Amino acid sequence: MIRVAVIGATGYTGVELIKILLRHKHVQITALTTRQADPIPVRQLIPSLPPEVKLEVETYSFAKVKKCADLVFLCLPHTESVVTAEQFHKAGKIVIDLSADMRLHAPQAYEKWYGFKHPKPAMLKQAVYGLPEFYREKIQTADVIANPGCYPTSVILAAAPLLKKKLVKANFISVDSKSGVSGAGKKLTQTTQFCEVEQNFSAYKVGQHQHTPEMIQVLSELSKKEVRLTFVPHLLPVTRGILSTVYLQREKGVGAEAIRKAFEETYSGKLFVRLKPAGKFPALADVQLTNYCDIGFWADPASEALVVISAIDNLLKGASGQAVQNMNIRCGFQEEEGLKTW
Amino acid sequence: MIRVAVIGATGYTGVELIKILLRHKHVQITALTTRQADPIPVRQLIPSLPPEVKLEVETYSFAKVKKCADLVFLCLPHTESVVTAEQFHKAGKIVIDLSADMRLHAPQAYEKWYGFKHPKPAMLKQAVYGLPEFYREKIQTADVIANPGCYPTSVILAAAPLLKKKLVKANFISVDSKSGVSGAGKKLTQTTQFCEVEQNFSAYKVGQHQHTPEMIQVLSELSKKEVRLTFVPHLLPVTRGILSTVYLQREKGVGAEAIRKAFEETYSGKLFVRLKPAGKFPALADVQLTNYCDIGFWADPASEALVVISAIDNLLKGASGQAVQNMNIRCGFQEEEGLKTW
Amino acid sequence: MIRVAVIGATGYTGVELIKILLRHKHVQITALTTRQADPIPVRQLIPSLPPEVKLEVETYSFAKVKKCADLVFLCLPHTESVVTAEQFHKAGKIVIDLSADMRLHAPQAYEKWYGFKHPKPAMLKQAVYGLPEFYREKIQTADVIANPGCYPTSVILAAAPLLKKKLVKANFISVDSKSGVSGAGKKLTQTTQFCEVEQNFSAYKVGQHQHTPEMIQVLSELSKKEVRLTFVPHLLPVTRGILSTVYLQREKGVGAEAIRKAFEETYSGKLFVRLKPAGKFPALADVQLTNYCDIGFWADPASEALVVISAIDNLLKGASGQAVQNMNIRCGFQEEEGLKTW
Amino acid sequence: MIRVAVIGATGYTGVELIKILLRHKHVQITALTTRQADPIPVRQLIPSLPPEVKLEVETYSFAKVKKCADLVFLCLPHTESVVTAEQFHKAGKIVIDLSADMRLHAPQAYEKWYGFKHPKPAMLKQAVYGLPEFYREKIQTADVIANPGCYPTSVILAAAPLLKKKLVKANFISVDSKSGVSGAGKKLTQTTQFCEVEQNFSAYKVGQHQHTPEMIQVLSELSKKEVRLTFVPHLLPVTRGILSTVYLQREKGVGAEAIRKAFEETYSGKLFVRLKPAGKFPALADVQLTNYCDIGFWADPASEALVVISAIDNLLKGASGQAVQNMNIRCGFQEEEGLKTW
Repeated sequence: MIRVAVIGATGYTGVELIKILLRHKHVQITALTTRQADPIPVRQLIPSLPPEVKLEVETYSFAKVKKCADLVFLCLPHTESVVTAEQFHKAGKIVIDLSADMRLHAPQAYEKWYGFKHPKPAMLKQAVYGLPEFYREKIQTADVIANPGCYPTSVILAAAPLLKKKLVKANFISVDSKSGVSGAGKKLTQTTQFCEVEQNFSAYKVGQHQHTPEMIQVLSELSKKEVRLTFVPHLLPVTRGILSTVYLQREKGVGAEAIRKAFEETYSGKLFVRLKPAGKFPALADVQLTNYCDIGFWADPASEALVVISAIDNLLKGASGQAVQNMNIRCGFQEEEGLKTW
Repeated sequence: MIRVAVIGATGYTGVELIKILLRHKHVQITALTTRQADPIPVRQLIPSLPPEVKLEVETYSFAKVKKCADLVFLCLPHTESVVTAEQFHKAGKIVIDLSADMRLHAPQAYEKWYGFKHPKPAMLKQAVYGLPEFYREKIQTADVIANPGCYPTSVILAAAPLLKKKLVKANFISVDSKSGVSGAGKKLTQTTQFCEVEQNFSAYKVGQHQHTPEMIQVLSELSKKEVRLTFVPHLLPVTRGILSTVYLQREKGVGAEAIRKAFEETYSGKLFVRLKPAGKFPALADVQLTNYCDIGFWADPASEALVVISAIDNLLKGASGQAVQNMNIRCGFQEEEGLKTW
Repeated sequence: MIRVAVIGATGYTGVELIKILLRHKHVQITALTTRQADPIPVRQLIPSLPPEVKLEVETYSFAKVKKCADLVFLCLPHTESVVTAEQFHKAGKIVIDLSADMRLHAPQAYEKWYGFKHPKPAMLKQAVYGLPEFYREKIQTADVIANPGCYPTSVILAAAPLLKKKLVKANFISVDSKSGVSGAGKKLTQTTQFCEVEQNFSAYKVGQHQHTPEMIQVLSELSKKEVRLTFVPHLLPVTRGILSTVYLQREKGVGAEAIRKAFEETYSGKLFVRLKPAGKFPALADVQLTNYCDIGFWADPASEALVVISAIDNLLKGASGQAVQNMNIRCGFQEEEGLKTW
Repeated sequence: MIRVAVIGATGYTGVELIKILLRHKHVQITALTTRQADPIPVRQLIPSLPPEVKLEVETYSFAKVKKCADLVFLCLPHTESVVTAEQFHKAGKIVIDLSADMRLHAPQAYEKWYGFKHPKPAMLKQAVYGLPEFYREKIQTADVIANPGCYPTSVILAAAPLLKKKLVKANFISVDSKSGVSGAGKKLTQTTQFCEVEQNFSAYKVGQHQHTPEMIQVLSELSKKEVRLTFVPHLLPVTRGILSTVYLQREKGVGAEAIRKAFEETYSGKLFVRLKPAGKFPALADVQLTNYCDIGFWADPASEALVVISAIDNLLKGASGQAVQNMNIRCGFQEEEGLKTW
């Protein structure tokens, strides 16, 4: 049993964390915090909970959380997150950060892609990238875990096995991702108003999305090659889920069987990645409200083209579910504890 | 003033044709037909019409249509369409076929992609491909017009100007298209039931969609090169619209300006293609209920990657709107007659 | 040809007005204004318009509008609207106000239901209630027209013919209305965010909605009886449309035929009200993007219960369409000019 | 631990039952059946399940189910259901029937409202109406349970406490219900196609819905008065959930406090009914994917009008969740076992 805190508990990822942690057998929620002055009953945030849940989200106090929690999940805005992470890290807590603040190695990348000067570059070396399918060993002993972005999770799981095994070219990858609206977070914007989204569909931040360097960094690291990739995110008129369609070029002589074998070998024993049989492809509905990443592919027999399609729930495998998976690995719990959504 | 008939008037494309033709100044609707035995008031199909519209869809009779119409739109199932087209063609009528029956040049392609032996291969030579932006002159004198498919319209308009001018490579093109549900037609299927579509999103017929050879044929013809292309359609939880994101490789030295110039030159004076300014991209909402194709692009300054995005209303520029545009060109009417949806 | 201005042209009702006025044969748009400092191209607000539309929405100036317009449509927030209305009225302009500022007769009702002290009570006597089906004669000569609210339009058209003819009881009416999200206007709110609305449905302002006194006032006036009514609005996960289901008690001996006759007599010659045949009921899809109000009813043969259902497009018959209908009547144009959406 | 079978396991209610039963601690699923000839893996019906679930839905055989199950859930079409129920009842099994076949007492009511002659009128006396909040004691010993309809569950829970305590008049009740599309079942129909439902909203079967006599019968029985009620169901563009807005007349002198007290007394200790505080009302999102019924009300201080609003998930409290709740009561399990969806 460990004592956990969620810092920034009122946004979409915070709320999902609470739901999972309430189900988790080895966890005691000891702090849920917000920057707001008045306490908020958790049942107001999650009306499906039974009346007996009396938990409240309270105003953040570092001293209080330090005293009562062994592990903290950070669901905070950029820069605030890494500053807070450093404090809890120094206080000896395990930190799982759902922001992007410690995902990239190069401080200057934050200026280019996120538009801010990184306030704590030293922390970038502390953090382990929390994608369990590829970094499990490091996660087992990590004190600071940078929880992956939603788009990068869907893309890395789709492409890394093939890049690692040199089955596809690294220098021309096109990634066409489609995300539900909850990916934009809970803040009010014109682009997430119902009348703007409903019946609509469009690309945004074409070639400019801040998750691009994260994908490139991790795929390059895993494949030991310089990866070049074009990333185009789109906004879907659904609440939850990301589906990424990745266009790759197979190396000469690589057929569908080699591709399938690479996926099977990589994900053998990985609980939360499911490979579709030949001719079948992922659908958002199959993974919504689960921690699964479903993957399917098509290797054009008439060319070297390869299409890999992956689907996740952006708030679970793409955020809070993966964060709990990381906690489970770090703390030696069963990997699926709290994540059995069936 | 010409007399027109819509054969197969009860499906989605038939209904859209009726709406446009009712607005058209130079057209008299003389026959609307169906295979069903009982007449159907047009107001039952289009409840937004005023009570004074007394038109009915009646049981099909070749003899009757032959007598009363100068031009026929065919909205019929495969094979039935080309057989009917031949009859009306022999009877001296102008035929605009909204099916795929005469879009491909090679009869054997129908066996491979559509699964039937083409019943009238001779007709394939009669038909002109009705994409006005590239085949206007032929359309002006055509007696049989094969109206383009919805996906091919969105893809050819996005890629042809660049392929024609040799600005992009022809041998590795990835097309990621997303279509609204009306693209599947009005027939009852499990996959188009509300509870299956809502909140869902997935690819279908990956690499196998029957519109693939149409895109390849027309792009190859226009660019005088053998085009290779991977096409992945997806089903969007919206009723109308197609957005295609096309991933291309620029030839060495080709920058954003050359791309823009190619689009501007190609579409100068083309009423129904609108190029987005730099940094802006199409959205379904901008083209729904219009005959426009909107196009935007992004040329990665750090690589040769090029992304072109196009959006159309699948039932208008992707079907019935384009059919009327073809009629207008063929009959010497103003090209936008009946298509001013503003 | 008259010169018209739209004051407050960037919200949902302003935008709908622009669309209609662009189609209108006898109107010249001479001013579109906003409180914002920078001009906004109309094509940015309505991307479906063709590139040749060069109109811009400009910063509001009373002096400028006074000079260039004969008639002004006001799409302004409460209190600002009536203050502006008075100015233009004094300047000799025809004013059509889409706000609620002049719909109620009693100034104190504004304090109770809208929460503000009415700044110009004298104007309440100037204004004619712009529901053409019942106030046509007054509208023909009105200088200030208070355009009805969306909910009241749907409810009054459903109930007034029966109350006027004493076919139903006036003292126990239940109105269950369901509105699309555009009814809430364009301002950012948590309750109109996509993730809150999608898949959701709920009542709001139960018994407290500010349109309640408007319904009661007009129905009482028309029936010369004190009407008592419970009004419960609900938020539908659609963009446009209102469907109101009205529960009434028939007077003794009143059967379905008397009800039908009352509707037929009242709406004979009324272009924009359509009565459904027995056993058929309105659907939002039938009236969306039109200026129609569709009405259907069911008289329980086993009791005195009567259900009347009406449907409108909240932005057209419920706002901007009706405003133009009022202008047409006031200016002697054809009543449906600009409103033929078929 | 009991052995259960689901007969008709491939429809929406069957699938929900499987999900709940897989979570249930005291249940062993021993048969899932269909009329189809080929077995269907449960993971095909519920793709969110983990790969280790190897269950299959198999072709129905009475003999097989009889041998392996102690309790059977019937999710079958009308008339087939009661015939099957009789067989299992005679074989000594506990039967929970999700169809309407045994909900009404009067055989002739089936002819009037369902359009068929009841094949087993004797069974109508065997069955206990499975609404635990009012019939718990009978359910505890029932061998045949008629699981309530979705609309009646939402309406009876909203109105029965007030009718029982004579706080409202029984002779003029108006029920305005709105249901998600899954309520129509999985069969293919034009009215449940995405393009028909999306953005649309309408009433259907006005005054004629087959759930009407069920509401009247149960409310009359509980209040010992003849209840008269008008029921108008509407189709919402959402997948799951029913929200019912019930319009009642309070008896003289009955205020909001008496109403609240009646609800509190009736539902004290009832796990799955939650009363909203004053000024708050149910929303579909709060109850979707739960077995809760949320209830809120508004008593007009200026009249006798009373509005009660209730919301349920039509597939859970409105069908399969309630069926399991009935099983739990009948078998002496914890009432919420399998139904904790938090």
